[in-house]
Amino acid sequence: MSKQRVLLLGATGETGSSILTGLLAFDKFEVEILIRPSSTDKPEVEQLSAKGIRVRIADISGPVDDLVSVLLGVDIFISAISGTSQLAQMDIATAVKKAGIKRFVPCCFATICPPGNVMLLRDEKEEVNQHIKKLFLPYTIIDVGYWYQLSCPRLPSGRIDYATFPGMNASLHGDGEALNILTDLRDVGHFVARIVYDERTLNKSVFCWGDILSENQVYNILEEVSGEKLERHYISAADVEARVVHATELLREDPSNARTRVGVYSAQYDYSKYIRADNRPEYAKYLGYLDARELYPNFVPKGFREFAVDLLDKKVVRPYSSARYN
Amino acid sequence: MSKQRVLLLGATGETGSSILTGLLAFDKFEVEILIRPSSTDKPEVEQLSAKGIRVRIADISGPVDDLVSVLLGVDIFISAISGTSQLAQMDIATAVKKAGIKRFVPCCFATICPPGNVMLLRDEKEEVNQHIKKLFLPYTIIDVGYWYQLSCPRLPSGRIDYATFPGMNASLHGDGEALNILTDLRDVGHFVARIVYDERTLNKSVFCWGDILSENQVYNILEEVSGEKLERHYISAADVEARVVHATELLREDPSNARTRVGVYSAQYDYSKYIRADNRPEYAKYLGYLDARELYPNFVPKGFREFAVDLLDKKVVRPYSSARYN
Repeated sequence: MSKQRVLLLGATGETGSSILTGLLAFDKFEVEILIRPSSTDKPEVEQLSAKGIRVRIADISGPVDDLVSVLLGVDIFISAISGTSQLAQMDIATAVKKAGIKRFVPCCFATICPPGNVMLLRDEKEEVNQHIKKLFLPYTIIDVGYWYQLSCPRLPSGRIDYATFPGMNASLHGDGEALNILTDLRDVGHFVARIVYDERTLNKSVFCWGDILSENQVYNILEEVSGEKLERHYISAADVEARVVHATELLREDPSNARTRVGVYSAQYDYSKYIRADNRPEYAKYLGYLDARELYPNFVPKGFREFAVDLLDKKVVRPYSSARYN
Repeated sequence: MSKQRVLLLGATGETGSSILTGLLAFDKFEVEILIRPSSTDKPEVEQLSAKGIRVRIADISGPVDDLVSVLLGVDIFISAISGTSQLAQMDIATAVKKAGIKRFVPCCFATICPPGNVMLLRDEKEEVNQHIKKLFLPYTIIDVGYWYQLSCPRLPSGRIDYATFPGMNASLHGDGEALNILTDLRDVGHFVARIVYDERTLNKSVFCWGDILSENQVYNILEEVSGEKLERHYISAADVEARVVHATELLREDPSNARTRVGVYSAQYDYSKYIRADNRPEYAKYLGYLDARELYPNFVPKGFREFAVDLLDKKVVRPYSSARYN
């Protein structure tokens, strides 16, 4: 049997880069990438093309039938579109159905969170997921929890400033005890490759994880590995909720502002992860997810402690270092 | 171990009556019913009470904490609330969660249909289902397809007029070939009893069925059993869609009119069942449902042919014979 052909959208993004690396390392697919006409000249795309990866070009916002013609011959379509473009996947899913593709992986790749006014970003993903199901389109939903790369506070010495954002995770939420599904961004693609190769995951939701940790545990591990002491400031549940309300008001005043939108995403992530405590294995299983660690016991992802060592050894890259949101 | 206590809401309705009968026949539960204060004097309620069934009384639209106190000691709550009161289940689910009930069965009991603007009734059920999942409330969703009792056209002789509605199923839809999940209303409760007794169905969706038939097959069986010839009028897919548009417009003009609302439900049922062909096992399984026939191979429900014989033998009751919608 010839290799299945996977087409990846968003290959130069954070999640997409990890997926591309994971698919190539897995070595069981013919991997191609889908690029917008405006991105053909980007150096990242030229680099991938030079590596021998076939590039297909399509205007994903154009007529559906034009997109269908670009998708012919593809077996699996993986969408790692940007967080603020989720609804562009409505037409993409329609085209994927028309092209007879055997599996569509929409851009979930996030924390466990129920739909229905907890997180705006999750509800946009739900709109896409509902559309997929209305189409009777074979799919796999993959969520990865939160990245290690976005879960660390700064160290007093400044040693990890190269890979973190100023002020990020400077406070803990509630009592800091809510457990969360966390994954090394570098492992996302290794999981995705295994999941989309697997017939058991067809028309299912799957979550993957490297570690299940509370914020207190993340702080503890960073202290142990670095030998430094971290101050702990706790934000009350009421304040976390108030931040959601405030961010939502700002967005209402300026709905097309992408930064303001990301502000809502961020506040709602904190609320869902730390106050509702949604992003944990028990809740994922309740919501119908399969556990990738049970499906692939032989694949051992990086633990958070290992990541922390890499972080101190300057082996980690700051996410969004190409300043995607500017 | 003592028997689990099941509390049933809507016990005097069509689906609720079948569920009550099924629960009692199964003989593994302590069965109680929940009644609104305004219904305590109804003869049907008095009959059930006289049979020894414990009656709990609560205003389901009142304060949630009052409802919680009425629910204490219940293990399983089954809601067979009327089709037009779906959203009253929002507060009920909150109360059920607060009361620590181990399983909530919301009022689904309908055809397979995806959420997202296919059927208004389905979208109201989805709002309840999402609320349940946000609450992390243990649940089982049960769908039963369409009832045999509402799937028959009139026979020219008038022999089954006693149990059917004038004009109902007088036409077939599209080419009449779309397969549909059908169940004898009398078997709904027998399925429900087995499903809620079963740990495998916790936090799952389950569909049950007696037969999988197209409209043409329903007509064929009725002809064979009765010896009468049925005329076949086919409504085109375009006309079925146009009826949905028309019914929706009428409801927009008069949103609080219950009859108009039922008109929308009816037109959308036809569209979903016969044009989208949603109500079939393959699609149910794709949407994540378990098949009750696979779970309970020893329970043999009535087939449609058997129902048709009963119908000709005057053994069937017309649904809604207490004229619930008047």
